[in-house]
Amino acid sequence: LAQLGTVAIVGFGLIGGSVALALRERSLAGRVIGISRSERALAEAARIGAIHAYSTNLALGVAGVDLVVVCTPVTDIARSVVVVARHATSGVLVTDAGSTKRAIVEAVERDDRGRSVFVGAHPIAGSDRKGPAYADPDLFEGRVCVLTPTEQTPADRLERARVFWEMLGCRVVELDPVGHDEALALTSHLPHALAAALAATVPPEVLDLAAGAYHDGTRVARSDAALWSGIFRQNRGPLLRALTRLEVELHTFRHALVDDDDAALQEWWTAARDNRTQFDERFAKSAEEDED
Amino acid sequence: LAQLGTVAIVGFGLIGGSVALALRERSLAGRVIGISRSERALAEAARIGAIHAYSTNLALGVAGVDLVVVCTPVTDIARSVVVVARHATSGVLVTDAGSTKRAIVEAVERDDRGRSVFVGAHPIAGSDRKGPAYADPDLFEGRVCVLTPTEQTPADRLERARVFWEMLGCRVVELDPVGHDEALALTSHLPHALAAALAATVPPEVLDLAAGAYHDGTRVARSDAALWSGIFRQNRGPLLRALTRLEVELHTFRHALVDDDDAALQEWWTAARDNRTQFDERFAKSAEEDED
Repeated sequence: LAQLGTVAIVGFGLIGGSVALALRERSLAGRVIGISRSERALAEAARIGAIHAYSTNLALGVAGVDLVVVCTPVTDIARSVVVVARHATSGVLVTDAGSTKRAIVEAVERDDRGRSVFVGAHPIAGSDRKGPAYADPDLFEGRVCVLTPTEQTPADRLERARVFWEMLGCRVVELDPVGHDEALALTSHLPHALAAALAATVPPEVLDLAAGAYHDGTRVARSDAALWSGIFRQNRGPLLRALTRLEVELHTFRHALVDDDDAALQEWWTAARDNRTQFDERFAKSAEEDED
Repeated sequence: LAQLGTVAIVGFGLIGGSVALALRERSLAGRVIGISRSERALAEAARIGAIHAYSTNLALGVAGVDLVVVCTPVTDIARSVVVVARHATSGVLVTDAGSTKRAIVEAVERDDRGRSVFVGAHPIAGSDRKGPAYADPDLFEGRVCVLTPTEQTPADRLERARVFWEMLGCRVVELDPVGHDEALALTSHLPHALAAALAATVPPEVLDLAAGAYHDGTRVARSDAALWSGIFRQNRGPLLRALTRLEVELHTFRHALVDDDDAALQEWWTAARDNRTQFDERFAKSAEEDED
Protein backbone atom coordinates (compact mmCIF):
# COMPACT_ATOMS: atom_id res chain seq x y z
CA LEU A 1 0.00 0.00 0.00
CA ALA A 2 2.21 2.80 1.30
CA GLN A 3 -0.51 5.33 0.42
CA LEU A 4 1.09 8.07 2.45
CA GLY A 5 4.28 8.30 0.38
CA THR A 6 7.27 9.64 2.32
CA VAL A 7 6.47 10.65 5.90
CA ALA A 8 8.76 12.70 8.13
CA ILE A 9 8.37 12.56 11.91
CA VAL A 10 9.76 15.60 13.69
CA GLY A 11 10.60 14.97 17.34
CA PHE A 12 11.32 11.41 18.30
CA GLY A 13 9.98 10.74 21.78
CA LEU A 14 7.15 8.50 22.91
CA ILE A 15 4.65 9.98 20.43
CA GLY A 16 6.99 10.30 17.45
CA GLY A 17 8.34 6.80 18.03
CA SER A 18 4.82 5.42 18.26
CA VAL A 19 3.83 7.10 14.97
CA ALA A 20 6.86 5.46 13.33
CA LEU A 21 5.99 2.01 14.67
CA ALA A 22 2.32 2.36 13.68
CA LEU A 23 3.31 3.36 10.14
CA ARG A 24 5.58 0.35 9.84
CA GLU A 25 3.17 -2.17 11.35
CA ARG A 26 0.38 -1.02 9.08
CA SER A 27 2.63 -0.56 5.99
CA LEU A 28 1.23 2.92 5.48
CA ALA A 29 4.28 4.81 4.23
CA GLY A 30 6.76 4.25 1.41
CA ARG A 31 9.51 5.82 3.47
CA VAL A 32 9.67 7.12 7.04
CA ILE A 33 12.24 9.74 7.99
CA GLY A 34 13.01 10.57 11.60
CA ILE A 35 14.06 14.13 12.44
CA SER A 36 15.31 15.18 15.86
CA ARG A 37 18.13 17.08 17.50
CA SER A 38 19.04 13.92 19.39
CA GLU A 39 20.89 11.63 17.01
CA ARG A 40 21.06 8.73 19.45
CA ALA A 41 17.32 7.94 19.44
CA LEU A 42 17.25 8.24 15.64
CA ALA A 43 20.18 5.90 15.12
CA GLU A 44 18.55 3.33 17.38
CA ALA A 45 15.20 3.68 15.53
CA ALA A 46 16.97 3.19 12.20
CA ARG A 47 18.85 0.17 13.56
CA ILE A 48 15.62 -1.61 14.55
CA GLY A 49 14.01 -0.68 11.23
CA ALA A 50 11.44 1.75 12.66
CA ILE A 51 12.59 4.46 10.23
CA HIS A 52 14.30 4.31 6.84
CA ALA A 53 16.49 7.36 7.28
CA TYR A 54 17.08 10.23 9.65
CA SER A 55 18.33 13.76 9.86
CA THR A 56 19.22 16.17 12.62
CA ASN A 57 18.54 19.09 10.28
CA LEU A 58 14.86 19.97 9.99
CA ALA A 59 15.11 22.01 6.78
CA LEU A 60 17.08 19.32 4.94
CA GLY A 61 15.16 16.41 6.42
CA VAL A 62 11.76 17.45 5.05
CA ALA A 63 12.88 18.11 1.48
CA GLY A 64 10.58 16.23 -0.89
CA VAL A 65 8.40 14.54 1.75
CA ASP A 66 4.61 14.20 1.38
CA LEU A 67 3.53 14.36 5.02
CA VAL A 68 5.16 15.76 8.15
CA VAL A 69 4.00 14.91 11.69
CA VAL A 70 5.42 17.32 14.26
CA CYS A 71 5.73 15.52 17.61
CA THR A 72 7.96 17.92 19.52
CA PRO A 73 7.02 19.52 22.86
CA VAL A 74 4.21 22.07 22.41
CA THR A 75 6.53 25.03 22.91
CA ASP A 76 8.45 24.07 19.78
CA ILE A 77 5.64 22.98 17.43
CA ALA A 78 4.66 26.26 15.74
CA ARG A 79 8.29 27.14 15.02
CA SER A 80 8.92 23.70 13.52
CA VAL A 81 5.77 23.83 11.38
CA VAL A 82 6.83 27.17 9.91
CA VAL A 83 10.32 25.89 9.11
CA VAL A 84 8.85 22.76 7.51
CA ALA A 85 6.39 24.79 5.45
CA ARG A 86 9.27 26.85 4.10
CA HIS A 87 11.46 23.89 3.11
CA ALA A 88 9.04 21.17 2.05
CA THR A 89 7.24 21.04 -1.30
CA SER A 90 4.04 23.07 -1.64
CA GLY A 91 1.95 19.86 -1.72
CA VAL A 92 3.02 18.80 1.76
CA LEU A 93 0.55 18.16 4.59
CA VAL A 94 1.84 19.14 8.04
CA THR A 95 0.04 18.01 11.18
CA ASP A 96 1.08 17.79 14.82
CA ALA A 97 0.35 15.93 18.04
CA GLY A 98 0.41 18.77 20.56
CA SER A 99 -1.72 18.76 23.73
CA THR A 100 -2.59 22.44 23.26
CA LYS A 101 -3.95 23.96 20.10
CA ARG A 102 -4.90 27.66 20.25
CA ALA A 103 -1.40 29.08 20.66
CA ILE A 104 0.05 26.71 18.07
CA VAL A 105 -2.64 27.27 15.44
CA GLU A 106 -2.54 31.05 15.90
CA ALA A 107 1.23 31.16 15.54
CA VAL A 108 1.25 28.94 12.46
CA GLU A 109 -1.55 30.93 10.81
CA ARG A 110 0.42 34.16 11.13
CA ASP A 111 2.70 32.55 8.50
CA ASP A 112 1.36 32.45 4.91
CA ARG A 113 3.10 29.22 3.99
CA GLY A 114 2.31 27.66 7.35
CA ARG A 115 -1.44 28.12 7.20
CA SER A 116 -1.61 26.72 3.65
CA VAL A 117 -0.28 23.29 4.69
CA PHE A 118 -1.12 22.80 8.39
CA VAL A 119 -3.91 20.97 10.23
CA GLY A 120 -3.67 21.07 14.03
CA ALA A 121 -4.21 17.70 15.67
CA HIS A 122 -4.19 16.22 19.15
CA PRO A 123 -4.31 12.46 19.47
CA ILE A 124 -5.44 11.96 23.08
CA ALA A 125 -2.98 9.22 23.91
CA GLY A 126 0.17 9.24 25.89
CA SER A 127 1.99 7.96 28.90
CA ASP A 128 3.82 9.27 31.92
CA ARG A 129 6.80 7.45 30.42
CA LYS A 130 9.15 9.49 28.30
CA GLY A 131 11.13 8.62 25.21
CA PRO A 132 11.01 6.31 22.17
CA ALA A 133 11.86 3.27 24.32
CA TYR A 134 8.21 3.32 25.43
CA ALA A 135 6.86 3.76 21.88
CA ASP A 136 3.89 1.55 21.03
CA PRO A 137 2.47 0.87 17.55
CA ASP A 138 -1.02 0.60 19.06
CA LEU A 139 -0.79 3.78 21.14
CA PHE A 140 -3.42 5.49 18.97
CA GLU A 141 -5.77 2.54 18.50
CA GLY A 142 -9.30 3.53 19.49
CA ARG A 143 -8.17 6.90 20.88
CA VAL A 144 -9.85 10.17 20.04
CA CYS A 145 -7.83 12.50 17.82
CA VAL A 146 -9.09 16.10 17.83
CA LEU A 147 -8.49 18.04 14.60
CA THR A 148 -8.73 21.81 15.01
CA PRO A 149 -9.24 23.34 11.56
CA THR A 150 -10.07 27.03 11.20
CA GLU A 151 -11.57 29.04 8.35
CA GLN A 152 -8.08 29.27 6.93
CA THR A 153 -7.44 25.52 6.81
CA PRO A 154 -7.51 24.17 3.21
CA ALA A 155 -10.26 21.56 2.82
CA ASP A 156 -7.99 19.07 1.06
CA ARG A 157 -5.43 19.22 3.88
CA LEU A 158 -8.16 18.67 6.45
CA GLU A 159 -9.37 15.60 4.59
CA ARG A 160 -5.84 14.20 4.26
CA ALA A 161 -5.18 14.80 7.97
CA ARG A 162 -8.41 12.99 8.87
CA VAL A 163 -7.42 9.99 6.74
CA PHE A 164 -3.92 9.95 8.23
CA TRP A 165 -5.01 9.90 11.88
CA GLU A 166 -7.73 7.36 11.14
CA MET A 167 -5.12 5.12 9.51
CA LEU A 168 -3.20 5.15 12.81
CA GLY A 169 -6.35 3.86 14.56
CA CYS A 170 -7.79 7.12 15.90
CA ARG A 171 -11.42 8.12 16.14
CA VAL A 172 -11.26 11.62 14.63
CA VAL A 173 -13.39 14.52 15.86
CA GLU A 174 -13.25 18.21 14.92
CA LEU A 175 -13.29 21.13 17.32
CA ASP A 176 -12.15 24.74 17.09
CA PRO A 177 -8.77 25.40 18.79
CA VAL A 178 -10.30 27.40 21.66
CA GLY A 179 -12.95 24.74 22.33
CA HIS A 180 -10.23 22.10 22.35
CA ASP A 181 -8.14 23.99 24.86
CA GLU A 182 -11.11 24.73 27.16
CA ALA A 183 -12.09 21.05 27.22
CA LEU A 184 -8.57 19.71 27.63
CA ALA A 185 -7.89 22.12 30.50
CA LEU A 186 -10.60 20.20 32.38
CA THR A 187 -10.04 16.67 31.11
CA SER A 188 -6.25 16.53 31.06
CA HIS A 189 -4.31 19.60 32.16
CA LEU A 190 -6.12 20.07 35.50
CA PRO A 191 -5.88 16.33 36.33
CA HIS A 192 -2.13 16.52 35.70
CA ALA A 193 -1.71 19.61 37.90
CA LEU A 194 -3.77 17.95 40.62
CA ALA A 195 -1.71 14.75 40.53
CA ALA A 196 1.41 16.84 41.06
CA ALA A 197 -0.23 18.87 43.85
CA LEU A 198 -1.16 15.64 45.64
CA ALA A 199 2.33 14.20 45.17
CA ALA A 200 3.80 17.45 46.50
CA THR A 201 1.48 17.38 49.54
CA VAL A 202 2.10 13.84 50.80
CA PRO A 203 5.54 13.71 52.43
CA PRO A 204 7.78 10.69 51.76
CA GLU A 205 7.84 9.70 55.45
CA VAL A 206 4.22 8.51 55.35
CA LEU A 207 4.36 6.73 51.98
CA ASP A 208 4.56 3.31 53.63
CA LEU A 209 0.91 3.88 54.52
CA ALA A 210 -0.20 4.87 51.01
CA ALA A 211 -2.26 2.57 48.84
CA GLY A 212 -4.44 2.62 45.76
CA ALA A 213 -5.94 6.10 45.99
CA TYR A 214 -2.50 7.73 46.30
CA HIS A 215 -1.01 5.42 43.69
CA ASP A 216 -3.59 6.21 41.03
CA GLY A 217 -4.07 9.83 42.03
CA THR A 218 -0.38 10.68 41.59
CA ARG A 219 0.55 8.42 38.66
CA VAL A 220 0.86 11.13 36.02
CA ALA A 221 3.04 13.24 38.35
CA ARG A 222 5.83 10.99 37.05
CA SER A 223 5.61 12.81 33.71
CA ASP A 224 8.26 15.18 32.42
CA ALA A 225 8.51 18.61 34.10
CA ALA A 226 9.54 20.63 31.02
CA LEU A 227 6.87 19.01 28.86
CA TRP A 228 4.10 19.85 31.33
CA SER A 229 5.33 23.32 32.14
CA GLY A 230 5.09 24.00 28.40
CA ILE A 231 1.55 22.65 28.14
CA PHE A 232 0.37 24.57 31.22
CA ARG A 233 1.86 27.83 29.93
CA GLN A 234 0.25 27.45 26.51
CA ASN A 235 -3.16 26.97 28.12
CA ARG A 236 -3.02 29.40 31.05
CA GLY A 237 -6.45 31.02 30.77
CA PRO A 238 -8.55 27.86 30.49
CA LEU A 239 -6.39 26.08 33.08
CA LEU A 240 -6.71 28.91 35.61
CA ARG A 241 -10.50 28.81 35.14
CA ALA A 242 -10.51 25.02 35.58
CA LEU A 243 -8.43 25.46 38.74
CA THR A 244 -10.95 27.94 40.10
CA ARG A 245 -13.77 25.45 39.48
CA LEU A 246 -11.81 22.82 41.36
CA GLU A 247 -11.21 25.19 44.26
CA VAL A 248 -14.96 25.84 44.46
CA GLU A 249 -15.50 22.09 44.84
CA LEU A 250 -12.80 21.86 47.50
CA HIS A 251 -14.43 24.72 49.39
CA THR A 252 -17.80 22.99 49.28
CA PHE A 253 -16.12 19.90 50.69
CA ARG A 254 -14.24 21.87 53.36
CA HIS A 255 -17.37 23.62 54.58
CA ALA A 256 -19.37 20.40 54.76
CA LEU A 257 -16.52 18.86 56.75
CA VAL A 258 -16.15 21.83 59.10
CA ASP A 259 -19.91 21.67 59.70
CA ASP A 260 -19.67 17.90 60.27
CA ASP A 261 -22.59 17.72 57.84
CA ASP A 262 -23.18 14.12 56.76
CA ALA A 263 -25.95 14.99 54.31
CA ALA A 264 -23.88 17.69 52.60
CA LEU A 265 -20.83 15.42 52.37
CA GLN A 266 -22.86 12.59 50.86
CA GLU A 267 -24.64 14.91 48.44
CA TRP A 268 -21.31 16.34 47.27
CA TRP A 269 -19.75 12.90 46.92
CA THR A 270 -22.75 11.48 45.07
CA ALA A 271 -22.72 14.25 42.44
CA ALA A 272 -19.03 13.56 41.82
CA ARG A 273 -19.64 9.82 41.72
CA ASP A 274 -22.43 10.29 39.17
CA ASN A 275 -20.05 12.14 36.82
CA ARG A 276 -17.48 9.40 37.10
CA THR A 277 -20.15 6.75 36.53
CA GLN A 278 -21.08 8.47 33.26
CA PHE A 279 -17.46 8.21 32.17
CA ASP A 280 -17.41 4.48 32.91
CA GLU A 281 -20.66 3.93 31.05
CA ARG A 282 -19.30 5.61 27.94
CA PHE A 283 -16.05 3.71 28.10
CA ALA A 284 -17.03 0.27 29.36
CA LYS A 285 -13.54 -1.01 28.64
CA SER A 286 -11.94 1.43 31.06
CA ALA A 287 -14.30 0.32 33.78
CA GLU A 288 -13.41 -3.31 33.36
CA GLU A 289 -9.69 -2.65 33.44
CA ASP A 290 -10.15 -1.30 36.93
CA GLU A 291 -11.61 -4.23 38.71
CA ASP A 292 -8.44 -4.86 40.58
CA LEU B 1 -4.82 -26.29 61.71
CA ALA B 2 -7.78 -24.05 62.55
CA GLN B 3 -5.65 -22.30 65.19
CA LEU B 4 -8.01 -19.40 65.53
CA GLY B 5 -10.96 -21.42 66.83
CA THR B 6 -14.35 -19.88 66.10
CA VAL B 7 -14.18 -16.52 64.34
CA ALA B 8 -17.09 -14.11 63.97
CA ILE B 9 -17.05 -11.48 61.22
CA VAL B 10 -19.26 -8.50 61.94
CA GLY B 11 -20.32 -6.58 58.82
CA PHE B 12 -20.26 -8.51 55.59
CA GLY B 13 -19.17 -6.21 52.78
CA LEU B 14 -16.00 -6.29 50.68
CA ILE B 15 -13.69 -6.42 53.72
CA GLY B 16 -15.75 -8.83 55.84
CA GLY B 17 -16.29 -11.13 52.87
CA SER B 18 -12.57 -11.06 52.07
CA VAL B 19 -11.68 -11.98 55.67
CA ALA B 20 -14.07 -14.96 55.41
CA LEU B 21 -12.55 -16.15 52.13
CA ALA B 22 -9.00 -15.73 53.44
CA LEU B 23 -9.82 -17.77 56.57
CA ARG B 24 -11.30 -20.55 54.45
CA GLU B 25 -8.52 -20.64 51.86
CA ARG B 26 -5.86 -20.78 54.55
CA SER B 27 -7.84 -23.13 56.85
CA LEU B 28 -7.26 -20.81 59.77
CA ALA B 29 -10.52 -21.12 61.68
CA GLY B 30 -12.51 -24.05 63.06
CA ARG B 31 -15.74 -22.18 62.40
CA VAL B 32 -16.55 -18.86 60.76
CA ILE B 33 -19.75 -17.03 61.67
CA GLY B 34 -21.05 -14.12 59.61
CA ILE B 35 -22.98 -11.38 61.39
CA SER B 36 -24.77 -8.58 59.57
CA ARG B 37 -28.09 -6.83 59.46
CA SER B 38 -28.41 -7.83 55.82
CA GLU B 39 -29.44 -11.49 55.74
CA ARG B 40 -29.17 -11.81 51.97
CA ALA B 41 -25.38 -11.48 51.79
CA LEU B 42 -24.99 -13.89 54.72
CA ALA B 43 -27.23 -16.54 53.17
CA GLU B 44 -25.27 -16.33 49.93
CA ALA B 45 -21.96 -16.58 51.81
CA ALA B 46 -23.21 -19.65 53.66
CA ARG B 47 -24.46 -21.20 50.41
CA ILE B 48 -21.03 -20.95 48.77
CA GLY B 49 -19.34 -22.25 51.94
CA ALA B 50 -17.56 -19.00 52.84
CA ILE B 51 -19.06 -19.13 56.36
CA HIS B 52 -20.35 -21.99 58.49
CA ALA B 53 -23.24 -20.16 60.11
CA TYR B 54 -24.69 -16.69 60.39
CA SER B 55 -26.77 -14.42 62.57
CA THR B 56 -28.45 -11.07 62.18
CA ASN B 57 -28.24 -10.57 65.97
CA LEU B 58 -24.86 -9.31 67.13
CA ALA B 59 -25.26 -10.25 70.83
CA LEU B 60 -26.36 -13.79 70.07
CA GLY B 61 -23.95 -14.28 67.16
CA VAL B 62 -20.78 -13.74 69.18
CA ALA B 63 -21.67 -16.05 72.08
CA GLY B 64 -18.77 -18.44 72.66
CA VAL B 65 -16.54 -17.22 69.83
CA ASP B 66 -12.77 -16.81 70.21
CA LEU B 67 -12.13 -13.92 67.83
CA VAL B 68 -14.32 -11.17 66.42
CA VAL B 69 -13.35 -9.01 63.43
CA VAL B 70 -15.54 -5.92 63.14
CA CYS B 71 -15.75 -4.90 59.47
CA THR B 72 -18.65 -2.45 59.59
CA PRO B 73 -18.46 1.18 58.40
CA VAL B 74 -16.28 3.25 60.78
CA THR B 75 -19.28 5.07 62.26
CA ASP B 76 -20.59 1.78 63.64
CA ILE B 77 -17.39 0.07 64.80
CA ALA B 78 -17.05 1.34 68.40
CA ARG B 79 -20.69 0.58 69.20
CA SER B 80 -20.34 -2.95 67.79
CA VAL B 81 -17.11 -3.61 69.69
CA VAL B 82 -18.76 -2.62 72.99
CA VAL B 83 -21.77 -4.88 72.32
CA VAL B 84 -19.45 -7.75 71.40
CA ALA B 85 -17.35 -7.24 74.53
CA ARG B 86 -20.48 -7.46 76.66
CA HIS B 87 -21.82 -10.67 75.10
CA ALA B 88 -18.73 -12.69 74.15
CA THR B 89 -16.64 -14.68 76.63
CA SER B 90 -13.99 -12.79 78.60
CA GLY B 91 -11.22 -14.55 76.63
CA VAL B 92 -12.33 -13.08 73.30
CA LEU B 93 -10.09 -10.94 71.08
CA VAL B 94 -11.89 -8.18 69.20
CA THR B 95 -10.20 -6.34 66.34
CA ASP B 96 -11.51 -4.19 63.50
CA ALA B 97 -10.69 -3.04 59.97
CA GLY B 98 -11.67 0.64 60.17
CA SER B 99 -9.94 3.32 58.12
CA THR B 100 -9.90 5.71 61.09
CA LYS B 101 -8.61 4.86 64.54
CA ARG B 102 -8.59 7.69 67.10
CA ALA B 103 -12.36 8.12 67.47
CA ILE B 104 -12.93 4.35 67.51
CA VAL B 105 -10.21 3.53 70.01
CA GLU B 106 -11.21 6.38 72.33
CA ALA B 107 -14.87 5.33 72.29
CA VAL B 108 -14.06 1.67 72.93
CA GLU B 109 -11.66 2.52 75.75
CA ARG B 110 -14.35 4.46 77.62
CA ASP B 111 -15.90 1.00 78.13
CA ASP B 112 -14.22 -1.27 80.74
CA ARG B 113 -15.06 -4.51 78.97
CA GLY B 114 -14.27 -3.01 75.57
CA ARG B 115 -10.73 -1.91 76.38
CA SER B 116 -9.89 -5.32 77.92
CA VAL B 117 -10.48 -7.21 74.66
CA PHE B 118 -9.92 -4.77 71.78
CA VAL B 119 -6.99 -4.07 69.47
CA GLY B 120 -7.62 -1.41 66.81
CA ALA B 121 -6.47 -2.42 63.34
CA HIS B 122 -6.49 -1.00 59.82
CA PRO B 123 -5.50 -3.30 56.99
CA ILE B 124 -4.66 -0.87 54.19
CA ALA B 125 -6.47 -2.73 51.47
CA GLY B 126 -9.73 -2.09 49.76
CA SER B 127 -11.48 -1.28 46.56
CA ASP B 128 -13.83 1.27 45.13
CA ARG B 129 -16.17 -1.69 44.65
CA LYS B 130 -18.71 -2.34 47.37
CA GLY B 131 -20.12 -5.55 48.77
CA PRO B 132 -19.14 -9.20 49.32
CA ALA B 133 -19.48 -9.96 45.59
CA TYR B 134 -16.07 -8.28 45.20
CA ALA B 135 -14.52 -10.16 48.14
CA ASP B 136 -11.04 -11.55 47.49
CA PRO B 137 -9.17 -14.10 49.65
CA ASP B 138 -5.87 -12.40 48.73
CA LEU B 139 -7.05 -8.86 49.43
CA PHE B 140 -4.70 -8.59 52.43
CA GLU B 141 -1.69 -10.35 50.92
CA GLY B 142 1.39 -8.17 51.26
CA ARG B 143 -0.61 -5.19 52.49
CA VAL B 144 0.32 -3.14 55.54
CA CYS B 145 -1.97 -3.59 58.54
CA VAL B 146 -1.59 -0.86 61.16
CA LEU B 147 -2.29 -1.94 64.76
CA THR B 148 -2.99 0.97 67.11
CA PRO B 149 -2.53 -0.28 70.68
CA THR B 150 -2.54 2.16 73.59
CA GLU B 151 -1.26 1.88 77.16
CA GLN B 152 -4.56 0.23 77.98
CA THR B 153 -4.29 -2.54 75.41
CA PRO B 154 -3.54 -5.94 77.04
CA ALA B 155 -0.22 -7.35 75.76
CA ASP B 156 -1.69 -10.79 75.06
CA ARG B 157 -4.47 -9.34 72.91
CA LEU B 158 -1.96 -7.26 70.95
CA GLU B 159 0.11 -10.36 70.27
CA ARG B 160 -2.93 -12.35 69.16
CA ALA B 161 -4.08 -9.53 66.89
CA ARG B 162 -0.63 -9.37 65.29
CA VAL B 163 -0.67 -13.12 64.63
CA PHE B 164 -4.20 -12.92 63.19
CA TRP B 165 -3.47 -10.16 60.68
CA GLU B 166 -0.18 -11.76 59.71
CA MET B 167 -2.03 -15.03 59.05
CA LEU B 168 -4.21 -13.15 56.54
CA GLY B 169 -1.04 -12.08 54.72
CA CYS B 170 -0.55 -8.59 56.16
CA ARG B 171 2.71 -6.88 57.03
CA VAL B 172 1.88 -5.61 60.53
CA VAL B 173 3.13 -2.28 61.88
CA GLU B 174 2.23 -0.46 65.11
CA LEU B 175 1.32 3.20 65.43
CA ASP B 176 -0.60 5.22 68.00
CA PRO B 177 -4.18 6.05 66.93
CA VAL B 178 -3.45 9.77 66.44
CA GLY B 179 -0.34 9.04 64.38
CA HIS B 180 -2.35 6.64 62.25
CA ASP B 181 -5.06 9.19 61.56
CA GLU B 182 -2.60 11.98 60.74
CA ALA B 183 -0.79 9.75 58.23
CA LEU B 184 -3.92 8.30 56.65
CA ALA B 185 -5.43 11.77 56.23
CA LEU B 186 -2.53 12.42 53.84
CA THR B 187 -2.11 9.03 52.21
CA SER B 188 -5.75 8.00 51.77
CA HIS B 189 -8.46 10.39 52.94
CA LEU B 190 -7.14 13.45 51.08
CA PRO B 191 -6.58 11.45 47.86
CA HIS B 192 -10.19 10.25 48.06
CA ALA B 193 -11.54 13.77 48.62
CA LEU B 194 -9.43 15.03 45.73
CA ALA B 195 -10.64 12.32 43.36
CA ALA B 196 -14.21 13.35 44.13
CA ALA B 197 -13.38 17.05 43.73
CA LEU B 198 -11.89 16.34 40.30
CA ALA B 199 -14.88 14.21 39.27
CA ALA B 200 -17.20 17.00 40.45
CA THR B 201 -15.24 19.62 38.48
CA VAL B 202 -15.13 17.95 35.05
CA PRO B 203 -18.59 18.17 33.46
CA PRO B 204 -19.98 15.14 31.61
CA GLU B 205 -20.15 17.02 28.30
CA VAL B 206 -16.35 17.01 27.91
CA LEU B 207 -15.74 13.43 29.05
CA ASP B 208 -15.29 12.21 25.47
CA LEU B 209 -12.00 14.08 25.59
CA ALA B 210 -10.81 12.57 28.87
CA ALA B 211 -8.07 9.99 29.03
CA GLY B 212 -5.65 8.39 31.45
CA ALA B 213 -5.06 11.26 33.87
CA TYR B 214 -8.79 11.77 34.45
CA HIS B 215 -9.43 8.03 34.55
CA ASP B 216 -6.87 7.32 37.24
CA GLY B 217 -7.35 10.59 39.09
CA THR B 218 -11.08 9.98 39.64
CA ARG B 219 -11.16 6.19 40.05
CA VAL B 220 -11.83 6.12 43.80
CA ALA B 221 -14.68 8.64 43.40
CA ARG B 222 -16.72 5.56 42.47
CA SER B 223 -16.59 4.52 46.15
CA ASP B 224 -19.60 4.61 48.46
CA ALA B 225 -20.81 8.03 49.63
CA ALA B 226 -21.99 7.02 53.12
CA LEU B 227 -18.81 5.05 53.81
CA TRP B 228 -16.57 7.98 52.90
CA SER B 229 -18.65 10.62 54.62
CA GLY B 230 -18.22 8.53 57.77
CA ILE B 231 -14.44 8.26 57.36
CA PHE B 232 -14.05 11.99 56.62
CA ARG B 233 -16.15 12.95 59.67
CA GLN B 234 -14.15 10.70 61.99
CA ASN B 235 -10.90 12.30 60.85
CA ARG B 236 -11.89 15.95 60.44
CA GLY B 237 -8.95 17.67 62.11
CA PRO B 238 -6.14 15.83 60.31
CA LEU B 239 -8.06 15.90 57.03
CA LEU B 240 -8.67 19.67 57.23
CA ARG B 241 -4.95 20.16 57.86
CA ALA B 242 -4.08 17.92 54.91
CA LEU B 243 -6.50 19.91 52.75
CA THR B 244 -4.78 23.14 53.78
CA ARG B 245 -1.42 21.68 52.75
CA LEU B 246 -2.88 20.75 49.38
CA GLU B 247 -4.30 24.24 48.93
CA VAL B 248 -0.86 25.70 49.60
CA GLU B 249 0.53 23.55 46.77
CA LEU B 250 -2.29 24.61 44.44
CA HIS B 251 -1.58 28.25 45.27
CA THR B 252 2.09 27.79 44.46
CA PHE B 253 1.07 26.29 41.14
CA ARG B 254 -1.47 29.04 40.44
CA HIS B 255 1.02 31.81 41.10
CA ALA B 256 3.69 30.23 38.92
CA LEU B 257 1.10 29.90 36.15
CA VAL B 258 -0.18 33.46 36.52
CA ASP B 259 3.44 34.66 36.37
CA ASP B 260 4.05 32.44 33.30
CA ASP B 261 7.15 31.32 35.18
CA ASP B 262 8.66 28.27 33.52
CA ALA B 263 11.40 27.80 36.12
CA ALA B 264 8.90 27.95 39.03
CA LEU B 265 6.52 25.52 37.31
CA GLN B 266 9.30 23.05 36.59
CA GLU B 267 10.70 23.35 40.12
CA TRP B 268 7.26 22.72 41.62
CA TRP B 269 6.60 19.77 39.31
CA THR B 270 10.02 18.24 39.93
CA ALA B 271 9.59 18.27 43.73
CA ALA B 272 6.24 16.50 43.32
CA ARG B 273 7.72 14.05 40.85
CA ASP B 274 10.57 13.25 43.26
CA ASN B 275 8.05 12.31 45.99
CA ARG B 276 6.19 10.03 43.63
CA THR B 277 9.46 8.47 42.46
CA GLN B 278 10.27 7.59 46.07
CA PHE B 279 6.94 5.80 46.32
CA ASP B 280 7.70 3.77 43.18
CA GLU B 281 11.15 2.87 44.43
CA ARG B 282 9.74 1.53 47.69
CA PHE B 283 7.03 -0.42 45.94
CA ALA B 284 8.69 -1.64 42.75
CA LYS B 285 5.68 -3.83 42.01
CA SER B 286 3.35 -0.86 41.81
CA ALA B 287 5.65 0.82 39.34
CA GLU B 288 5.68 -2.17 37.03
CA GLU B 289 1.91 -2.50 37.05
CA ASP B 290 1.72 0.95 35.56
CA GLU B 291 3.65 0.53 32.41
CA ASP B 292 0.56 0.70 30.28
